[in-house]
Amino acid sequence: MSMIEFNGEHYLDGRASDPRELGWMRGAPPPEDKRITFGRHVAFPQLRWSLTHMRELAATANIWRGGGTPSSLEHWDRSAEIDLLTFQDMDGHTRRFDEALYDTYTDGIAVLHRGRVIYERYFGALEPHLPHACFSVTKSYAGTLAAAFLYEGLLDDKRTIPHYLPELKGTGWEEATLRQVMDMQVGLAYTEDYVDENSGVNAYARAGGAWRPANYDGPETLCDYLRTVRKEGAHGQFAYKTINTEVIAWVMARVTGRSFIQLLEEHLWTTLRCEENAYMRVDSAGMATAGGGLYASLRDLVRFGELMRREGEWNGRQIIPEAVVHEVQRGGDRENFSQAGYGLLPGYSYRSQWWVTHNELNAFEARGMHGQRLYVAPKSEMVVARFTSHPLASSAGSEPITGPQMLALGRMLAA
Amino acid sequence: MSMIEFNGEHYLDGRASDPRELGWMRGAPPPEDKRITFGRHVAFPQLRWSLTHMRELAATANIWRGGGTPSSLEHWDRSAEIDLLTFQDMDGHTRRFDEALYDTYTDGIAVLHRGRVIYERYFGALEPHLPHACFSVTKSYAGTLAAAFLYEGLLDDKRTIPHYLPELKGTGWEEATLRQVMDMQVGLAYTEDYVDENSGVNAYARAGGAWRPANYDGPETLCDYLRTVRKEGAHGQFAYKTINTEVIAWVMARVTGRSFIQLLEEHLWTTLRCEENAYMRVDSAGMATAGGGLYASLRDLVRFGELMRREGEWNGRQIIPEAVVHEVQRGGDRENFSQAGYGLLPGYSYRSQWWVTHNELNAFEARGMHGQRLYVAPKSEMVVARFTSHPLASSAGSEPITGPQMLALGRMLAA
Repeated sequence: MSMIEFNGEHYLDGRASDPRELGWMRGAPPPEDKRITFGRHVAFPQLRWSLTHMRELAATANIWRGGGTPSSLEHWDRSAEIDLLTFQDMDGHTRRFDEALYDTYTDGIAVLHRGRVIYERYFGALEPHLPHACFSVTKSYAGTLAAAFLYEGLLDDKRTIPHYLPELKGTGWEEATLRQVMDMQVGLAYTEDYVDENSGVNAYARAGGAWRPANYDGPETLCDYLRTVRKEGAHGQFAYKTINTEVIAWVMARVTGRSFIQLLEEHLWTTLRCEENAYMRVDSAGMATAGGGLYASLRDLVRFGELMRREGEWNGRQIIPEAVVHEVQRGGDRENFSQAGYGLLPGYSYRSQWWVTHNELNAFEARGMHGQRLYVAPKSEMVVARFTSHPLASSAGSEPITGPQMLALGRMLAA
Repeated sequence: MSMIEFNGEHYLDGRASDPRELGWMRGAPPPEDKRITFGRHVAFPQLRWSLTHMRELAATANIWRGGGTPSSLEHWDRSAEIDLLTFQDMDGHTRRFDEALYDTYTDGIAVLHRGRVIYERYFGALEPHLPHACFSVTKSYAGTLAAAFLYEGLLDDKRTIPHYLPELKGTGWEEATLRQVMDMQVGLAYTEDYVDENSGVNAYARAGGAWRPANYDGPETLCDYLRTVRKEGAHGQFAYKTINTEVIAWVMARVTGRSFIQLLEEHLWTTLRCEENAYMRVDSAGMATAGGGLYASLRDLVRFGELMRREGEWNGRQIIPEAVVHEVQRGGDRENFSQAGYGLLPGYSYRSQWWVTHNELNAFEARGMHGQRLYVAPKSEMVVARFTSHPLASSAGSEPITGPQMLALGRMLAA
């Protein structure tokens, strides 16, 4: 078997870790060493199976696509040409597009150019109709809806959070404005470290229903957890903390009387006429895990990206205000962002839960753990949706390849 | 609030227990006394909400409807007429059709006559697109598929179970034939008592992932549980035991190499062109809960009944062999059935996981806990699908009303 090294650890490579080859959950019943259970599901290589089968392991709520036929996606296959595209990764190695998909543990990739599907491939456990983990790509859905509600006057981003959620008085959000929360500029005693069991993000995950030790006596729900989080440092500096997105979703639910799940269903899934139902991980109070709990099909993810590329218009109807997309494209304060130390994202900024490249393609991205990505590149009229199951939760192993790969593809299409 | 008595206990009645009125899982987050969690979900009146929201509480596997448009169901509304239909219940009280729906805690009912929807109503938490618990109605799906596989020669019902599942040597099924299993005529040390915590069916449910006490050390999976069940008494006498259906599904999975979930998807959901995805409760090894774990939309349940009424033909294609339906209609041994003491089902028999009325409508039924029902009445060209959330798991509270109600409706339509 072929192994590959990340951060000093050795992992099966993209081909050798194919879940079909490894035989996870095959057989009646599957042999014990081929079973994946909740808790073990995020270990590599099991996650190569579980990111497309999450609902079989835990409670989830449906996001209904509505009845009727899905919105059509015209196809114009350019895969032969794209597969052979070469590019230089951040370490200076020349790579070929198709091989790079294996090297980044890709489960599925769809590329739209001028609204047409020019490239679409599935690997491993993913199939076109199966929802895959979006992880933090979920946040960009939340941010976009919140920005739309701002535009419509339903929300005011100059208000502090307790205006909407009195429950959060006395917490780290007491003096944070909704704008600061949307732009991840809140000083919180919380760490976004996926590896450290004692980090904030792992405490948050356990409160939301992730695997809990037998003696767990922490918060039972996401909302209970949010009430325990205190201020640390000043507000105003970019600091990526997943729990801010939970606050956004909670604010939207309070103001609209609709859950985040219902909002996604009513404002995006049924209006975009998505192809498949999506789903959302829920906590024990039935609240959506808005920071990273969305599972969607690849084509439906790319539809959302295309909606953003079309500046909110879909089949003649303005679903998201144009101004919202423009604001995301303009991005946030690059100087502020640069102080957060994202060496792999030079020149970026962050706005309304989107990562903004400020590159020659004017691209902005939704980014999720283990390599999930929705890349919208207006200048090359390109949208790329990508599901992956990289061994590393962080993008340290994938970004040095994926970043240059997206840029090379965008350049080719713009040419 | 209006209360009603069953077996000496008092319950909110059908109207007062409406989950919308009681406000389960409403709010962001729902107040603690309005939350429903796994384990508490089968208590009344919580189950009036949870039978349509089960996936939000536990792990489930999707049954995909396939792409494309659903098979059309023509509508010809006769509800005004049907609502006013009166009939005598088993206790001699005259009831009106529409009122009887509340009296039996109906969540939804769809009636087809000659293939057209003549009556369709939703109550409480149920909506047309939401899958509802089928409970043991699931068994009739399993029995029908197994009977089809028998007809095609893939299975042989004269074989004993260890021929297919060597794992079950030494268990209660060692000498049981597949036919005896399909007809529930296996002598097993197992009791089907939903109320007794120590019953066989509750041990089975815990193995399958139902709520477990903290000190649980029983079997971890359904298959593990089946291997613990011993013989008791002779085979050949009708004795309704849910675990037999798990054996049928396990046999089918072993022989076809497809899980019961995949079989439902490939042989029924996509071929019937169902309207919605369905889902299935799965155990920790990912095995379907074939004895009662199916959740389907009302219209898709009625499609399955209509398939049976049309003797297996659907839009010009024979999906289930005609002979399979004829065999179900002929039923089993009524004398044998009568010894099992089902006082509310006089004259019935049981065949291939269907309850056969032998009444003037030639009706046969799929029946599930808390009142689920699929009633196929060939003589009146009628199919009734009905989802309910009756306080009693047994049909003691609903059958005295529902049985005569179905018969009265069938007579009206046959007239």
